[in-house]
Order: sequence, then C-alpha cells, then structure tokens
Amino acid sequence: MSSPGSATGHRVAEAGERALIERIRSRVPAADPALVVGIGDDAAVAIPDRGALQVLTTDALVEGVHFDRRFSTPADIGHKALAVNVSDVASMGATSRFALLSLMLPAHTTLIEVDELLEGLLELAKRLRITLAGGNITRSPGPLVLDVTVIGSVRPRRILTRAGGRAGDDLYVTGRIGAARAGLEWLREQCVQSGEANAVGGVTLPRPADRDLAECVERYCRPEPRSRLGAILGRTRTASACMDLSDGLADAVTQLASASHTGAEIDAALLPMHPSAHAWFSRIGADAVSAAVAGGDDYELLFAVSPKRRGRLRGVFREARGVPITKIGALTADRSIGLTRNGRLEPLPTGFVHF
Amino acid sequence: MSSPGSATGHRVAEAGERALIERIRSRVPAADPALVVGIGDDAAVAIPDRGALQVLTTDALVEGVHFDRRFSTPADIGHKALAVNVSDVASMGATSRFALLSLMLPAHTTLIEVDELLEGLLELAKRLRITLAGGNITRSPGPLVLDVTVIGSVRPRRILTRAGGRAGDDLYVTGRIGAARAGLEWLREQCVQSGEANAVGGVTLPRPADRDLAECVERYCRPEPRSRLGAILGRTRTASACMDLSDGLADAVTQLASASHTGAEIDAALLPMHPSAHAWFSRIGADAVSAAVAGGDDYELLFAVSPKRRGRLRGVFREARGVPITKIGALTADRSIGLTRNGRLEPLPTGFVHF
Repeated sequence: MSSPGSATGHRVAEAGERALIERIRSRVPAADPALVVGIGDDAAVAIPDRGALQVLTTDALVEGVHFDRRFSTPADIGHKALAVNVSDVASMGATSRFALLSLMLPAHTTLIEVDELLEGLLELAKRLRITLAGGNITRSPGPLVLDVTVIGSVRPRRILTRAGGRAGDDLYVTGRIGAARAGLEWLREQCVQSGEANAVGGVTLPRPADRDLAECVERYCRPEPRSRLGAILGRTRTASACMDLSDGLADAVTQLASASHTGAEIDAALLPMHPSAHAWFSRIGADAVSAAVAGGDDYELLFAVSPKRRGRLRGVFREARGVPITKIGALTADRSIGLTRNGRLEPLPTGFVHF
Repeated sequence: MSSPGSATGHRVAEAGERALIERIRSRVPAADPALVVGIGDDAAVAIPDRGALQVLTTDALVEGVHFDRRFSTPADIGHKALAVNVSDVASMGATSRFALLSLMLPAHTTLIEVDELLEGLLELAKRLRITLAGGNITRSPGPLVLDVTVIGSVRPRRILTRAGGRAGDDLYVTGRIGAARAGLEWLREQCVQSGEANAVGGVTLPRPADRDLAECVERYCRPEPRSRLGAILGRTRTASACMDLSDGLADAVTQLASASHTGAEIDAALLPMHPSAHAWFSRIGADAVSAAVAGGDDYELLFAVSPKRRGRLRGVFREARGVPITKIGALTADRSIGLTRNGRLEPLPTGFVHF
C-alpha cells in the first residue's frame, strides 16, 4: 500500500463526499441523450424507451461475503457489481439501460481504488451501452460494499419470467459451466499454500500461468453477463421461462421448476462443462459434475423452450455469435429435481445459498 | 434480547435467504396493477406512467454512520431508509412510484427485527402509494445496511433541478427546521448520561416525556418527506430550482446556489425554527440559528421562486394542507453565501458532510 501522501494513496476520508462525486462524474463518458438529469442532482431523470416496460433490479456485492480483496482487483469488483445486475435483467429478456451505484467505502480506501472500481464498472457499462445515471457514496465502518441498481427496458409481450415453463419443455443453458467455481477454488488454494489465509485486502494474488486456469479465474472475477442473448431470447419469444445461474445451475433449475410448478431432469452427459474446470476438478479429486452443478457465479442463462417453439432456436443460435447453447434436460410433470448420470437418477447437488 | 429459540428471537442466519424473501413477499400488500412482475423473480417489471420521465435515486443507511441502534427502532430505520429517497424524488418535482430494498443483515439480526424494518418501510410506502417491487438480501459481516432505490415519475416540463435558480429568485423552505438536530442531540445526551455510550444495538433508548422534545426525536427518527409538496411544486411549475435539506439548510442553500451559478443571502430572522428545537438549543447554551442551519436530517424542501411566478405560490399554499412554507432569503448575483443576523452579514454555518 502506498503512503497517504503519494499520488495514488490519498484516502477517501480526506477527499470529502462532494469531491468523490465530482471525481466519478468526470469519469463518466459524455451524456446519453436519454438521460435528462445525470450525476450530481438529488435524483437522475431519464426518458424511458417508448412503449416499453421498466425492468428493475438491485444486487449488492459485500466484501467478505461476495468478494475477497485478495482474489479480485478493484476493477474486477466494479465490473462484477454491474455484471450480476445486468445478468438479472438479461434473464428477463430485457435490455439494461441505466445503472445507479451506491458505494460504501471503508475510511482506508484510496482514491486510486475508487478510480479502479469505477473503471471496471464503466468499461463494462460502455461495452453494453449502459449509462451510469447516479448513485451515492458513503463511509462504511465495515466492509467495502457496491450496491448497483440496473433499470432495463423490455417490450410488454417479451418478458421472460421463471414461471412460464411447462412439463415437456426442454432446458437449455448458455456458455460453459463450472469455470467460475474452478477459478475460485484455485484462488482459495493459493491462499492456503502461500499462508496468506488471514491477509487483508490491498494485495491481489497473481493469476495462474496456465492459460486455461487463468480463464477460469477470469470467469470468476469478471463474469460476462449474457446481455445480448437474454434480449434475443425475449425478442424472439423463444423461451417460455428463463433465469440466470448466479447461485449455480442446480439452484437455477430448482427455482425455475418450482416457479413453473414442474419438476426437472438434467442429463449429466449433456452438461457443457468448461474443459479447464473439468480438468482442474479431476486433478484435485473432486466430482466435476457435482462441483460444476452446485457452483455459483457462472452468470449463464438457463431457459426452457416449448417443443412447439424449438424451431426458433435456429435463429437464436445464429445470433448468438459463437456463445454455445446446450440442451441439458427437460421440465417434467413429476415435481422432483433429478440428475441422470450413468443411467441412474440421483438428486441434483445443491447450489449456493447466501445464508 | 430474546433467546434464539423464542418466537421473536430466530436469527436470520438460521432462516435462509429464500425464507427471508418469502417472509418479505408475504408482508407486501396486494399487487399494484402497474407492477407486472414483483418480488421473487430475477428482476421486477413495471408499467411506466404514460408520457412521463423516470426519476431514479438510491441512498443507503449504514449502521454507525446514518443511524444508531440505541436511538432508532428497526421500524424507524425502515421508515427512514425509504423516506430519504422519497425526499430526493420529491425535490425533483416528481412522484415516487416504486422502491427496491437491498438489505445487508448482520448474522445476529433476528427475524422480528427484519419484520419491524419492513413494517416501518411498508407503512410509509402504503401511505405514499409506493410499491415495494423487489430487492435483495445478503449477509453483512459488518453493519446493518438498508440501501433503497426509488423510481419516480414526472412529466417532462415539470422537472425541478438544483440548477434552475436565478439571481433575484426568492428562497423558500417547507416546514420547520432544527427539530431533527435537536432530537439527535437529546438522544446523544441521554447516552452520555446513562453511561450507555458504548452499548451496542438491540435496546432503544426511551423517548422523552416532554411532548415537544418527543416531537424533535420523532422528526429525527421518522422524517416525513415532503412527497406531495414536491410534486405540487413541479406540477404547478412554481419553483425554478429545488433540493431537499438532507444535509442541512446551509448545505442545501450552498448546493442550490452553486448549481444555479448564483450566491444566496438568508435572513436569520425569517428562519422557521422549530419552537421546541429553539427552546432546547437555548437550554443547552447552543446558538440555535447555527445549530438549526447546519443540522441535517430535516428532509424539508428548499426551493427558489422567480418574482414573476410569485403569484403561483398562493395555490401551492392552499394545496400544502397546513405545511408551512416560509420565505427565508433570495439568490444573489454575488456568488457568496451569507446569513444576515441583527443587521450584520456573516458566512452561513456549514452543513454536515459524510466524509
């Protein structure tokens, strides 16, 4: 850590709330024409998309619960705080438009750390054409907290909920699963090995030299929300139900089936395991399927497609720009949630729950 | 504190995130027809008011920074978390429509405390016709945090910003000032007297027997945002600029003048001091004007009115239903911010800043 007097080392406690807001405002790119009043007033004012519904979601990243300063850089944390919310909006078939950032900063936070948090968030925002419209900053006597709200937009008949699935619908998942969990496990192992298990923030562990493992760590630290694909699934009305994998595939399957009043059966042989994750789980002697299914932080989309609409998937595949979309099972009339593996049906391993 | 086994004493750590969300959902009143998807999915979906702009604001209450568990009951905290956001929306001339609640709960929080937090928030929401549309719950390894987002609605030409004031506009304030600060000071004094200065949460101090002082404490613990009045000021296009007094009158005057590229002059003799606050400040030997002007948490509105629109105030007074509206000074071409007291001009005492 640098000294308080250095260019990078000034603490937020010395800067003042107004100076911090000004600092953030100066980093937000030129105004979105849909934003009538932006950062700096009591509230932001935006022009909603014509004829669209508002999609509203909020999700907090809390230090020590959702991230570890040894694993994630401030830019990673800023990225992820926005990504997890965009993922929620995408899972409704909607497009993210505006974000609000509520920052709770421990007094020892440096200005450079605030800059980096913002940089991570704004880089993703720019790429996805999301405008940071406002927020607030306050001191935290405890952990660093980023609470992001995203306001999205969706046409009335294109909303995807968790509840629209029916028995007989096929279940699909985007991307590959297990990578984020493998990345997290690798990071934890490094801490134990280097004896830094009790070290506190400020120093981020080096990333793995192995390219595949590095990709897993990247997926954990900087998840890529399926923003485009969610909007496509909504727009084309392909999916009957959708949700994201924030708490793992097993959790998502359970929630979607429960909301749809169905059961579900997943086929282990069909699961699009991330190859590096598979290799790494095997290396540490873990059951790769269980680890990948129960592990959270993948931020892929799980969705159901009625057999009648299966034909629409061709168009979705084309628009997916190389993101894999894999059939993994189906919703069932029987309300149980099962995993078929080697011809045997077993209960689906449980996902991650925050309490 | 009751034992973990009692009806009121179950800790959130034992309940699980999903059970908590279900508990909250069961307490939210019957659906708002404008809410298409409410609590329980990945995001909420709402129908925006036709032809209106979206107003977006977020503000967090952090234990140890914005509230003290010895001073405020969980219901007070829930109320205030919503109130401070509604106040921001009102200061834009807008009407609050939807709220999102992001709850960060220490593991020792009891279910009854969660119920009470919600009760305080929902009671105010019901009264102001605001619908709790969603949110999220997570564990906090540190303080209790309530981060609320409010989505409001305003007609395009009725937005009030801080920046619309001009030199020569009169400055008005709603309600009476200083009460919240007096209430807070009284609560602090009780802590010192009872030697509880270092006591931790769970036990709330008794309220004062004196009715006037009790009102001051109530104003601190349960501020009443000027929701109707803000919307009236916007709808009638009476005000040229507006902001709320969350960080005190002095701060609001300074911010509004700065955003409007003017100065301001406030007349101490015109200030609508809360009588109990005045009496209490005098009793403890404090300069009542300075304390009231610098003290935050009043959640009244400060607004500017051009001399040409002064006539519109009559209609606003009529609609204000007894809420006092008092002229306290004017915006000036000279960029300084002054207070006239006993015929002498002095700098305005400084407001509260969070860092």
